[in-house]
Amino acid sequence: MNVHNIKIVKNLLDANDQVAARNRQRFDDAGILVVNVIASPGAGKTSVITKTLQTLGDRAAVGVIEGDIAGSIDTEKVLSAGAADAVQINTGGNCHLEANMIEQALGDLELDRLNLLFIENVGNLICPNHWTLGEDIKLCLSSTAEGHDKPVKYPEIFTACDVIVLNKIDLAEMVDFERDFFYESVRALNSDVPIFEVSCRNGTGLEEWTDWLLTRMKET
Amino acid sequence: MNVHNIKIVKNLLDANDQVAARNRQRFDDAGILVVNVIASPGAGKTSVITKTLQTLGDRAAVGVIEGDIAGSIDTEKVLSAGAADAVQINTGGNCHLEANMIEQALGDLELDRLNLLFIENVGNLICPNHWTLGEDIKLCLSSTAEGHDKPVKYPEIFTACDVIVLNKIDLAEMVDFERDFFYESVRALNSDVPIFEVSCRNGTGLEEWTDWLLTRMKET
Repeated sequence: MNVHNIKIVKNLLDANDQVAARNRQRFDDAGILVVNVIASPGAGKTSVITKTLQTLGDRAAVGVIEGDIAGSIDTEKVLSAGAADAVQINTGGNCHLEANMIEQALGDLELDRLNLLFIENVGNLICPNHWTLGEDIKLCLSSTAEGHDKPVKYPEIFTACDVIVLNKIDLAEMVDFERDFFYESVRALNSDVPIFEVSCRNGTGLEEWTDWLLTRMKET
Repeated sequence: MNVHNIKIVKNLLDANDQVAARNRQRFDDAGILVVNVIASPGAGKTSVITKTLQTLGDRAAVGVIEGDIAGSIDTEKVLSAGAADAVQINTGGNCHLEANMIEQALGDLELDRLNLLFIENVGNLICPNHWTLGEDIKLCLSSTAEGHDKPVKYPEIFTACDVIVLNKIDLAEMVDFERDFFYESVRALNSDVPIFEVSCRNGTGLEEWTDWLLTRMKET
């Protein structure tokens, strides 16, 4: 990439940061905790969101912005699981959400009714990390089935994230997941990031994860 | 993205296509079958390549170009598994390989000694699809653990690919993988693409997949 193109990319990212700051102000004014969910395809983003909704029950009013290349299956799922409100963004091929897509989607959400907003990013462990959306918390969702070497292979998101949810913990033995390797790799990048081991299939760890979210909501 | 930026992206892609065409000519001259392996992080790209190497044994001389954001673990793995030659590309944060990276890497490979070349792309189900490298075959590697809805959520790669390997078939039951849903979704996008179900863990399907590759190598 030549200097001219690098400058254009930098301008795009700067413009994104400005819109993200506006989004953040709106979230702060409404007193909402906003979680940007970043993960590989198939790590279980929608499952973790729906199980969190069910575990929270009436302890929080939760909105969801669903980012997908195509389709609206996930929005239907989160509404059935008890989301107070949900908006679908179709990126039309784009590999990540950008702050202006969120700004547009906010027109369809009643922020004052919500305590918590999940933004489910496009399934991609790399690109979403470069585009801030105005979130309070960058959640890196990883699954045991992807392997214990993901922090080594994709260090940027494991370094930048504020919390890690390690999903499909029920499969750990079946897929020879080396827990020590995973933890040591994460700690080398991000020494005190909280890590929650969960299984959306059998419910392991969902209470602990949800309690942490409720504590963070009270601080917002 | 404004018209000016769209034009620059188009120019970058056009430039990439030109380099890809040069790569392709070199592959054709050397009589090598080249496979661009595209998958989510953790789908098992390196495992499928190493198991294919072991299954092929001395029936083919195989080179591997490993694309990773960081590290060289995978290159060491494929060399131990019997690759005749291997080159590591570190993209330094870039979310996909580009044709000029391959052109550079070819300087370190003795193409005339090889029958088959795997290019392991960066773990990403979206961006690598936009950048052709000069390959004969675009391989879409999906795993049951990612879920049966991947063709619906990421239609572009399932439409463009020349072959699908469905890995981790041993986990299908454990993860409630709905085979009919997966096949119907794929067929709606890409009616006659070959699909191979494999397990790198217990060896299922590797002979069939390897036989198909050998047939394609003979045609090259």
